[in-house]
Amino acid sequence: MKKALFLWGVLMSFSLGGFAQDIAIYPMNWWVGMKTKSIQLLIRSTNEDFSSDKVLINYPGITVSKTHQFTNKRYLAVDITIGPKTLPGDVLIKLAQNSKNREIKWPVKKRPSGLGTSYAQGVTSADFIDLIMVDRFSNGDESNDKVAGMRDQSLNRMEMYDRHGGDLQGVINHLDYLQGMGVTTLWFTPVLENDMDNRTEHGYSITNHYKVDARYGGDEIYKKLSNDLHQRGMKLIADIVYNHYGSCHFLALDPPDADWVHQWPTYTQTTYREQPLFDPYASKADSKKMSNGWFDRMMPDINHENEFMANFIIQNSIWQIEEFGIDGVRLDTYTYNNLEFANKCNQALLDEYPKLSIFGEAMVHGVANQAYFEQNNINTPFKSNLPSVVDFQSLYYGIIPALTQSFGWTEGVNRLYYTLSSDFLSKDPMRKVLLLDNHDEPRFYSVVGEDPAKQKIGYEWLLTCRGIPQMYYGSEVLMKGFKNPDGLLRSDFPGGFKGDEKNAFTGKGLTEAEKANQELVRKLANYRKRSSAITKGKMMHYVPVDGMYVYFRYDDNQTVMCVMNTANAPKEVDFSKYDERTSSFKTAQNIVSDERVELSSITTIPAMSMWVLELQK
Amino acid sequence: MKKALFLWGVLMSFSLGGFAQDIAIYPMNWWVGMKTKSIQLLIRSTNEDFSSDKVLINYPGITVSKTHQFTNKRYLAVDITIGPKTLPGDVLIKLAQNSKNREIKWPVKKRPSGLGTSYAQGVTSADFIDLIMVDRFSNGDESNDKVAGMRDQSLNRMEMYDRHGGDLQGVINHLDYLQGMGVTTLWFTPVLENDMDNRTEHGYSITNHYKVDARYGGDEIYKKLSNDLHQRGMKLIADIVYNHYGSCHFLALDPPDADWVHQWPTYTQTTYREQPLFDPYASKADSKKMSNGWFDRMMPDINHENEFMANFIIQNSIWQIEEFGIDGVRLDTYTYNNLEFANKCNQALLDEYPKLSIFGEAMVHGVANQAYFEQNNINTPFKSNLPSVVDFQSLYYGIIPALTQSFGWTEGVNRLYYTLSSDFLSKDPMRKVLLLDNHDEPRFYSVVGEDPAKQKIGYEWLLTCRGIPQMYYGSEVLMKGFKNPDGLLRSDFPGGFKGDEKNAFTGKGLTEAEKANQELVRKLANYRKRSSAITKGKMMHYVPVDGMYVYFRYDDNQTVMCVMNTANAPKEVDFSKYDERTSSFKTAQNIVSDERVELSSITTIPAMSMWVLELQK
Repeated sequence: MKKALFLWGVLMSFSLGGFAQDIAIYPMNWWVGMKTKSIQLLIRSTNEDFSSDKVLINYPGITVSKTHQFTNKRYLAVDITIGPKTLPGDVLIKLAQNSKNREIKWPVKKRPSGLGTSYAQGVTSADFIDLIMVDRFSNGDESNDKVAGMRDQSLNRMEMYDRHGGDLQGVINHLDYLQGMGVTTLWFTPVLENDMDNRTEHGYSITNHYKVDARYGGDEIYKKLSNDLHQRGMKLIADIVYNHYGSCHFLALDPPDADWVHQWPTYTQTTYREQPLFDPYASKADSKKMSNGWFDRMMPDINHENEFMANFIIQNSIWQIEEFGIDGVRLDTYTYNNLEFANKCNQALLDEYPKLSIFGEAMVHGVANQAYFEQNNINTPFKSNLPSVVDFQSLYYGIIPALTQSFGWTEGVNRLYYTLSSDFLSKDPMRKVLLLDNHDEPRFYSVVGEDPAKQKIGYEWLLTCRGIPQMYYGSEVLMKGFKNPDGLLRSDFPGGFKGDEKNAFTGKGLTEAEKANQELVRKLANYRKRSSAITKGKMMHYVPVDGMYVYFRYDDNQTVMCVMNTANAPKEVDFSKYDERTSSFKTAQNIVSDERVELSSITTIPAMSMWVLELQK
Repeated sequence: MKKALFLWGVLMSFSLGGFAQDIAIYPMNWWVGMKTKSIQLLIRSTNEDFSSDKVLINYPGITVSKTHQFTNKRYLAVDITIGPKTLPGDVLIKLAQNSKNREIKWPVKKRPSGLGTSYAQGVTSADFIDLIMVDRFSNGDESNDKVAGMRDQSLNRMEMYDRHGGDLQGVINHLDYLQGMGVTTLWFTPVLENDMDNRTEHGYSITNHYKVDARYGGDEIYKKLSNDLHQRGMKLIADIVYNHYGSCHFLALDPPDADWVHQWPTYTQTTYREQPLFDPYASKADSKKMSNGWFDRMMPDINHENEFMANFIIQNSIWQIEEFGIDGVRLDTYTYNNLEFANKCNQALLDEYPKLSIFGEAMVHGVANQAYFEQNNINTPFKSNLPSVVDFQSLYYGIIPALTQSFGWTEGVNRLYYTLSSDFLSKDPMRKVLLLDNHDEPRFYSVVGEDPAKQKIGYEWLLTCRGIPQMYYGSEVLMKGFKNPDGLLRSDFPGGFKGDEKNAFTGKGLTEAEKANQELVRKLANYRKRSSAITKGKMMHYVPVDGMYVYFRYDDNQTVMCVMNTANAPKEVDFSKYDERTSSFKTAQNIVSDERVELSSITTIPAMSMWVLELQK
């Protein structure tokens, strides 16, 4: 050790290092006062091997415990600990490349504080999420539509998979609209850099985990947006990807070692079949293909068993939350991860941020299949610690069949009843994220045959059922589109771009049906904010009869009764049939129509319609 | 107490009781040396009230601990204990009716023993069950076709719901056929007396729990059948009904108290909806209707919370097993029971007979719904102790869609894969009872569009998949019939009745397709008996590809590979894709066709066909 220090001294005397532009450190910074104090720095030189694994840090409070080299000598990893009394500042890290000594600044910062940065607060059933694809929402800054030096130079709103120019300034410009709609929380598909050749609109091919894509406006505008949201009492969800990165990521183009991603003799795609993970009869071959096969040729599949790769993802996830003021995390392609790693990473986030919400994309079929990936009530050798999931079951096997199938023993709204009653498998179903559509699913309005009455029921259900409701940008104004063949489900929000004839922000050019649905969402989402029964209360539902499904949200202070008539005929509603919940009330207020209903009389609900009734004494 | 004894003495001196024909005791007898020693006798007089609740038993080893009276004074209940040193004999029970003393003989018998009565041995995956409706299988004794004094005097084979005349002697006559088919175990729909006005063919409206229906030949022939089966190394399953009895049962016509069955202001049927039992959002109203509503007007719904009623069922269940030498129990309408009671009764049976098999009818939709009713891996407030269920999921959402739906992401044989991979919810899936059809389900041959190729795959699956295979009488010779509109799924076994032109026992009049399917079942079921891999081994399966599903049954000594091609085109089978199971083998023997296959070559399996291959080195 003494010898090493002496050598350093010698090396230092030969060259004045200066601050390296060709060397980067990940994470790009850290903070003092974090619970996560042990950090593994991944140091990368873009042009020259490190000639020694010796690293010198002379900064009060910070200790180096270990260094690591890789087959690729342009990388080093350094394990450090940031002691409790460390003060903010720029840490100088000294390294050796051949004859040169190198010095790199690595900031340890003061953590943000104050009202506008009250992040990591969690997203609950009291929230209403809007999922936005930034490129497709609104162009607030045309100067960043194309960015010199980036691979994808497309910019063509007529092509669904070219760039359209939307950016974070566009979102900031319309926060009044979103908040007015009753939205409390924004979730963007990933905003980190996707410097890929094409298909950069979705964001899931990350090429730099420490940089917001310049076409969205970069880091500072993202921070401003986060701050603006928090100032408004709104929240921000980050879409984090444990599973893969883009094939143009530096770790893919210039890997430290071959085993940072899963390698196959020839390109091998995942089977997209989650069953082998829990199936008692699974073959190892199928399990391996599921977890280690690539999601896409453009997305190298991360090997979480490589501890350096794993640390890189864990630290970046914490870094994003801290740096950008994130309140909740949506985890992409959750089922394809090494689940032991995912548990570890989830736990690291929760250790740092106990109130953080985390929900995973488990786009599977089957209530038990889905439950396996979240905190559940099933005894299995592997137990997921994921707090919740996007609830594809109540979409695929719930609200869609309820509104598109004829009523049958297991069909129509009975299917919705089946699915919700399976919540006994989940630890806390109130944390599930409910949806009608998203960036991978056909627009709900198309699914229900462009029937405004069904879209209305969809939203009335979304905003009153158990869980956290999530809207997909523009579905409030009846945006259409199927996944195949046209990809239109990622089309532009009307009014978000210069020259748009239709403008959903102002109402200009909207049809009556579009206006009506937008108004329904606005009214119900704002009512919902004040409703303790819906946001915090329990749920009770009744066996559907003849296409009619009745459920209640209730607590000690409020009871909301929801009557969904999916039949093509009016149905009688006899309130006395539900006396466990109705007996102490005399009248009801229809939250959407403002009509009053007497509970003593048998009332008729029209065909294919829904009531949201607040019961009153 | 002294006074009571004195009174008895006085009463005795007034009248000579004699043995009462108008008084019955349930259970009708018990045995010495049983683990179940505390018995509650239900004593019923058909014509006169008991004038005292005093009961005198003077029999060495037997003690009376308590007596109970009911609103209906013609009933008494007496709690006794049969001590360990009690010897077999007729116990004299002395009772009082007005001025009369009554004496009733109640036998405590020696338990059966010996090879032919090695009962309660359990039914395992090594068995092959045939489910027979006795009235519809074979008429072996025309003298009992109509029985004087019984309500249903119908006898008309042209009417599906009249009696047809089948009986237990008919079954005995054809044991060679059944055993030759590879069947090891018989399950009859209930054979206890159904003295109802009509619809007595199914057996589920029991009117006397202590008497085999005279039209089936009565108790002695049932015992002979049981003995014959055991002599052959075969087994007997009793179909036991905890949930209800027939409306002409003496307990219904002359109830001890009003609360022995569930009473409703007006007739209230069950919803047939199991969800409220586990659903976190269930209303009490729905739970109550599910469990306490009647299954049918003819079937009063037993109130298991009445301890006398509960004891009656528990004791009768044990009595049936002991009296008739039962090896396994199938529990009817399991989901409609009070499940706490069902657990108690199951436990009582298992306490007495640790090796007994018990499986329940849980005719529900959904893998989690089904798992709730058996021993499972789900943490719920209520835990079922039922060892297993009839596996309706692998029927409804397994083999039927596999052979009737086009292959899709969740359709066709993928659906079967989904369902089997959900076995992680169950404690021991190897105990599930597999079926293609039964007395309540349409004949499989009709379901698969009368396609012999599909029926063949059905049986190849049934006899090789995990679990205990169950056949429904006559489906081996392609019996047809849908539940609606014709009820033909309960039609007669060909050749079982005088004058039948077609005879499946001899082969006379069978079509080539019928003969071929019968031969397939015979061959495969007999192969199965000797196959350690299928009867005791593990299972491994692979994600289906393009309509082809491959699974293995294997243990240290044997590997059986099953290739099910549900596509309408031939498919290539590359054995190297399954090298976890195939790598140590060179050839395979097709168990059905006797053909040999070389594993080194890529072989083609014809459209819509299945291979059962025993791999060889």
